Amino acid sequence: MTGQEFVRDTQYIGTRITRDGRDGFPVEAGRYRLVVARACPWANRTIIVRRLLGLEDALSMGMCGPTHDSDSWTFDLDPGGLDPVLQIPRLKDAYEKRYPGYPKGITVPAIVDIPTGAVVTNDYPQITVDLEREWTEHHRPGAPELYPEHLADEIDDVNRGVYTEVNNGVYRCGFAGSQDAYEKAYDRLFTKLDELSDRLADRRYLVGDTITEADVRLFTTLARFDAVYHGHFKCNRTKLSEMPVLWAYARDLFQTPGFGDTIDFTQIKRHYYEVHRDINPTGVVPVGPDLRNWLTAHHREDLGGRPFGDGTPPGPPKPGEVVAPENGVPLNG
Amino acid sequence: MTGQEFVRDTQYIGTRITRDGRDGFPVEAGRYRLVVARACPWANRTIIVRRLLGLEDALSMGMCGPTHDSDSWTFDLDPGGLDPVLQIPRLKDAYEKRYPGYPKGITVPAIVDIPTGAVVTNDYPQITVDLEREWTEHHRPGAPELYPEHLADEIDDVNRGVYTEVNNGVYRCGFAGSQDAYEKAYDRLFTKLDELSDRLADRRYLVGDTITEADVRLFTTLARFDAVYHGHFKCNRTKLSEMPVLWAYARDLFQTPGFGDTIDFTQIKRHYYEVHRDINPTGVVPVGPDLRNWLTAHHREDLGGRPFGDGTPPGPPKPGEVVAPENGVPLNG
Repeated sequence: MTGQEFVRDTQYIGTRITRDGRDGFPVEAGRYRLVVARACPWANRTIIVRRLLGLEDALSMGMCGPTHDSDSWTFDLDPGGLDPVLQIPRLKDAYEKRYPGYPKGITVPAIVDIPTGAVVTNDYPQITVDLEREWTEHHRPGAPELYPEHLADEIDDVNRGVYTEVNNGVYRCGFAGSQDAYEKAYDRLFTKLDELSDRLADRRYLVGDTITEADVRLFTTLARFDAVYHGHFKCNRTKLSEMPVLWAYARDLFQTPGFGDTIDFTQIKRHYYEVHRDINPTGVVPVGPDLRNWLTAHHREDLGGRPFGDGTPPGPPKPGEVVAPENGVPLNG
Repeated sequence: MTGQEFVRDTQYIGTRITRDGRDGFPVEAGRYRLVVARACPWANRTIIVRRLLGLEDALSMGMCGPTHDSDSWTFDLDPGGLDPVLQIPRLKDAYEKRYPGYPKGITVPAIVDIPTGAVVTNDYPQITVDLEREWTEHHRPGAPELYPEHLADEIDDVNRGVYTEVNNGVYRCGFAGSQDAYEKAYDRLFTKLDELSDRLADRRYLVGDTITEADVRLFTTLARFDAVYHGHFKCNRTKLSEMPVLWAYARDLFQTPGFGDTIDFTQIKRHYYEVHRDINPTGVVPVGPDLRNWLTAHHREDLGGRPFGDGTPPGPPKPGEVVAPENGVPLNG
């Protein structure tokens, strides 16, 4: 925090995994492990992009549980509490392998170099872009172009505003240290959501007529909006389900293979409500809202658009990477 | 609290003001002062009933501000911080006049005997009934019968369930000391709300075909539902505005003279979010929700019913008792 406004530390480990290996880490199937938590919106981006591009076999995935202490995300969901590949209980161990005494937050997503057990990068805005641009030889047949060259400037431009006002904007509301800082954050958030709603009123996707990186980034915040941000972060002018355009847009993506099937509402709710004791001292997790509405008809097909462009949707999630049915939508509520 | 479930202390000062004065306090115009806070749902009942019955000239009203410390509600809205009639800064002073060292909570509503400055009663379930039954000679011409003899048993029966499951049920959710206690409270609340929704689907009011004490008691909780209980108390299966029958019922009452004109959403929100630091440590008050929806058409007239029976609606609130326009609905959001 700086003053009373929540300010995110955006200094990440910026080493890149590239085709040419210029940072010492070339793209290589089987060499790296993507560590995520389904709860985390920043990690959720990478889960979606990996699925859409069909990188499951080239880049394995380790999953931390939804809650963590002040020290580290942990592999508490795994048998014995150890990641089965990295054989460590805490993600912090991989950060320490890279930088002993690593002084900053232990964040997901992180990509770990399996042979050394050390974190290569936790620079999430770069991670998805590199999966899209550098890992192409491992993409599945029919993988969509999520960050096409000719749309890159427009995607970057949209992403900037979505990041500052929405992805991070909800945190700015929830962690505001004063009434004034909160109210400013609230105004910025809903001003931007209204603007995005206008943009999406007559176009199916944010940029071009196919799903891109821009949609992935907006989606992960929208997916958490009613379940968490509306109440826990006081983003409560309206629920997402009360904003017709954005709600239809979000459901359209949710119902697209690779999006909704990555969402674990139970883990999402547990993460925010159990970890942030500073704003929810009891740690009690709300039972609501009823989330079955995510599966209702959205009618966004009427706007046209080609979700995967010249490509195809991904198949079902890999065994072992399927969200527990009771944590997804159909059985919720 | 007992164990982990929130349990309300229901031992009140039960002295009654009656026609025959059997407890030493006969009904008498000008002798007593009703002390309320607009924020408080229990006090809100008395504000509504006093308005509906036209008791303003016989029973004056003192208004505490929305927030209070652990010690007492205070007259911080009044010039100099003193109630203009009682000339005290804290409601506690009137409780102490009655019982020096009064050991329990200082609650609103309370009726104070102006000559002695001592609290006569804070027994809110009895207060409205006595205003209805004992103060009849001071009722305005056209005052409705809010607690008619022939419906009393049915009203009492409805009130019991509304009290335990809804009026107090929202607090049981919000102040639950464990996940399990909360989930039980949540189930009880929404089970009852669904039952009330069924009851109200084809009848305009809870009992008979006119407004009664039963409607007053349900209304004060519904009026606070989306503004406070939904987020602050985690009563979040749905917003009231997502429960069509109850929402139309609540708007119908809200738009009836004597109900909505007693609701100060700003004070309501400030009270809960600023006072309960145990569940909202920052004290930040949400900007939302947008409450202008309270004024939309409800179409409950189609069910028939005679809101005031053989009586008439009350006139506008007295000067000095009007909710600040910016705290009511039209300018909210």
